[in-house]
Amino acid sequence: MVARAFGASGFILADVKDDEVKDVVQKISASWGGRFDFVMEIPWKQAVTEWRRKGCLVVHLTAYGENIQTSDVMTRIKAAGKDVLVIVGSQKVPKAFFFSEVSDYNVAVGNQPHSEISALAVFMDRLYEGEELGREFDDAKLRVVPQKHGKRVAKS
Amino acid sequence: MVARAFGASGFILADVKDDEVKDVVQKISASWGGRFDFVMEIPWKQAVTEWRRKGCLVVHLTAYGENIQTSDVMTRIKAAGKDVLVIVGSQKVPKAFFFSEVSDYNVAVGNQPHSEISALAVFMDRLYEGEELGREFDDAKLRVVPQKHGKRVAKS
Repeated sequence: MVARAFGASGFILADVKDDEVKDVVQKISASWGGRFDFVMEIPWKQAVTEWRRKGCLVVHLTAYGENIQTSDVMTRIKAAGKDVLVIVGSQKVPKAFFFSEVSDYNVAVGNQPHSEISALAVFMDRLYEGEELGREFDDAKLRVVPQKHGKRVAKS
Repeated sequence: MVARAFGASGFILADVKDDEVKDVVQKISASWGGRFDFVMEIPWKQAVTEWRRKGCLVVHLTAYGENIQTSDVMTRIKAAGKDVLVIVGSQKVPKAFFFSEVSDYNVAVGNQPHSEISALAVFMDRLYEGEELGREFDDAKLRVVPQKHGKRVAKS
């Protein structure tokens, strides 16, 4: 849901099959619109190889990487002008994620321990320079009408 | 952990007692440094009343609120120049959160459904204009030494 809300075109749940996650993603997209690809079960190595072959940069988000704020890593990523495959691990990730056979960049959304999902949100917010949070999703059945106070949802 | 990593001075886990959360927060702070207050069990109304009395702005993060990107809500919050108490609900929140008896501002980190914790991270990143991700934490026993590839942690 974070990937979708922050403007990703899709999400790969590598190595794992989880029909519950798939259902949630499909229901959210059906109600709130937009196109969002969801793939699961594919081994992570295969996903990385495929997307690299298509010309993607691979960015691994990790607290051990180059600091998104104090280094020039975002400038270099943006300057490349390529599509980006973001890798977010859960718990312990394979050592290879940290090296250039897998990741072009290791980016730290701060070097303090926190949450992978928050790192993803902030990375994407900075990658798209905030634009993603203002965009409309096509074919939405439900749409929030922003309010200073209270809740309003429009149906179409 | 997100609140701490993104520069909050503390965290109130309202209405609930959870010693596991408390332990994690204390362990993280002991290892990674900084001062971070942790309070739990206090009823949310009391927390809000106390912090308002101290002159805080209360900001409720909700997908129904004013869009952080397309409205001027962040400008108004920053212009107030006050300390900010951020309210992040879990699942269904009391209706009062949406109204001015509780929240001065309802801020939407995008009007799409996603995660409260990511909303908190992006809100704080924008509130502090990124500065929080570069800061050093005092009295840290462990400190990441950012690397382009691999992992490095310094002990002190």
